[in-house]
Amino acid sequence: MSGRSSNKNQTACASRRRAALRRAAARKAQALLVSRPVDVRYLSGFTGEDSFLLAGRRWAVLITDGRFDEQAPRECPGIEIHVRKGSMSEAIKDALKGRTVRTLGVQGTHLTAAAMEDLARAAPSRRLKPLRDFVAPLRMVKDDSEVRAVRRAVRVAERAFGELIVRGIRAFVGRSEREVAAELEYRMRLAGAEAPAFETVVAAGAHGSFPHYRPGATRIRRGQAVLIDWGARLAGYCSDLTRVLFTGRIPPKLGAVYEVVRRAQAAGIAAVRAGVACKTPDAAARRVIDDAGYGRRFVHGLGHGLGLEVHEPPALAARSRARLHAGMVVTVEPGIYLPGAGGVRIEDDILVTTDGRRRLSSLSTDIRAMVLR
Amino acid sequence: MSGRSSNKNQTACASRRRAALRRAAARKAQALLVSRPVDVRYLSGFTGEDSFLLAGRRWAVLITDGRFDEQAPRECPGIEIHVRKGSMSEAIKDALKGRTVRTLGVQGTHLTAAAMEDLARAAPSRRLKPLRDFVAPLRMVKDDSEVRAVRRAVRVAERAFGELIVRGIRAFVGRSEREVAAELEYRMRLAGAEAPAFETVVAAGAHGSFPHYRPGATRIRRGQAVLIDWGARLAGYCSDLTRVLFTGRIPPKLGAVYEVVRRAQAAGIAAVRAGVACKTPDAAARRVIDDAGYGRRFVHGLGHGLGLEVHEPPALAARSRARLHAGMVVTVEPGIYLPGAGGVRIEDDILVTTDGRRRLSSLSTDIRAMVLR
Repeated sequence: MSGRSSNKNQTACASRRRAALRRAAARKAQALLVSRPVDVRYLSGFTGEDSFLLAGRRWAVLITDGRFDEQAPRECPGIEIHVRKGSMSEAIKDALKGRTVRTLGVQGTHLTAAAMEDLARAAPSRRLKPLRDFVAPLRMVKDDSEVRAVRRAVRVAERAFGELIVRGIRAFVGRSEREVAAELEYRMRLAGAEAPAFETVVAAGAHGSFPHYRPGATRIRRGQAVLIDWGARLAGYCSDLTRVLFTGRIPPKLGAVYEVVRRAQAAGIAAVRAGVACKTPDAAARRVIDDAGYGRRFVHGLGHGLGLEVHEPPALAARSRARLHAGMVVTVEPGIYLPGAGGVRIEDDILVTTDGRRRLSSLSTDIRAMVLR
Repeated sequence: MSGRSSNKNQTACASRRRAALRRAAARKAQALLVSRPVDVRYLSGFTGEDSFLLAGRRWAVLITDGRFDEQAPRECPGIEIHVRKGSMSEAIKDALKGRTVRTLGVQGTHLTAAAMEDLARAAPSRRLKPLRDFVAPLRMVKDDSEVRAVRRAVRVAERAFGELIVRGIRAFVGRSEREVAAELEYRMRLAGAEAPAFETVVAAGAHGSFPHYRPGATRIRRGQAVLIDWGARLAGYCSDLTRVLFTGRIPPKLGAVYEVVRRAQAAGIAAVRAGVACKTPDAAARRVIDDAGYGRRFVHGLGHGLGLEVHEPPALAARSRARLHAGMVVTVEPGIYLPGAGGVRIEDDILVTTDGRRRLSSLSTDIRAMVLR
């Protein structure tokens, strides 16, 4: 990271820390202990592991270890770096010394029961308050640089997919699911990805009915549906896409199902708009699938937030109580799974805007474009 | 997984659950709630996400969701499957109904403070007891099938590395660190890996001084050291290896450092034996590096356990209080890092045996074998 982009990132991180501290202040905490690695990254710019961020109104300390003593100051120029030799809880106690922190907010949905005990023992004069979600609500709404990062991750994933399918049926038939997954991941890496955003799914034929199938040694045959769920991670941000390809011929049952899923996805996407309840797009897509008689076969929510994590809030699901805001990035991915026969899922990444939505991904959903020759 | 291996695996899982429950009984818990995904896998065979295992003396329930309703019964033939519709804590309450569980042991080092609160609210009649490490100590000692799995993961990593370096200097010079990492990961995938065990490190020249460097767009030049830290995941089990290659010429400063690290690693490995304290191999290796005047530049522990996770107990480190037992698999990876100049680390995977050790990896550590032509 260049000095300039690092400084720009630090400005963003500092403003995010202020927002998190405002939330903490409402809960009477004067400082925050951030333990979830992606949240540490979001609030400090630090990309290493096993490090906690302590932040108060006018100060921030990153507690790390010897492995990161060169990297941490480079990535977090505005933040005090504490390279711990002993336990994390002792280091936290030391870093709090001399600071007026009566109540320390901790990440209740990340910090473990045991870590809480250790910290209470090490720093008995501080009150520990497990708070829920003081970073997740901030992370849900992406700033411009984050949207650009997701868009780049989408572009890399799409480029790799394009390089694969442009070779047609011979890039699939006779090869194992795992080979195809390996090639897709390799092409994403060459296109600039740090890693796949998650384990790539390549599921041939009946395997498509497992929503989280792991690609195996099964060879892809002619006349099959091949479900591919893939994404790239780039500068920490993720993309997440799914398409179903057909090797020459569309199995009759799946052709009709494909059209239902495609219409359900279009209905779900059309319902995305700032101010709308997160359950609304789910209901819109589910209605299409219900009406076609496949309601029982759509076994998961419509989608999820996308950012530093491949699954993050908000959930687009019937049980969700959140609302969509401009700047959120969500997946829309209805699916129909027929045990023994296969499955169809179509997934795109969508930016919520004040007046509607923008599709960050650009692959066709037309079934004719999915038939490999 | 074939029916036979699945059943065999279930026998292993059932005996592991009994061992975990014996540990829990000593802490007065009649049942266990297992929440860490790798521990759920270890005790049930289930490979999906977001699912908890509840286990008592004569019963076990896997609490999962609709995404895994086909996969869970296939992977866990002996275990009752509970597909939850509502929250995890409600599902746990339901699954406990009618069972005599006064005290439920939970994973204190994994279950979050918030999950504890939710569960206490949902099941107020059960006493929740956060226990530390009721699975980790079992997982430290591998059975034969686990050792075979690590060995396969080592073999896949070595094969991919061999395919890369056999092409000599042209597989490196002029290519970016990221391209080399991508090729290594691709070759591991083709050789059968599910995924890289962790983000592959390819660090050229001065980048080698960051123990956890992320490969970037920097092109590899002639006359550089290239540190490569890579591993494969196969059937869930990990390998973890490091070598330093030299593109044609060995930078003079690093040649001497390499020899120190090589001797330190040999000393560390020679000190591995069942019954020995985990800090002993660390001390043996550290002494070699101290004596050569680089003590301050060896900024991490000597190694770590290796299994379903790429870093797991025991740590081979000065602060460790554990002892080595036959069946443990550990990495031995001393390193010397010279800011601005580069770094050398050499890492192999070692099985602890009653009469000493067996190296699971087979790559040479001879510096002459590391010079690419």
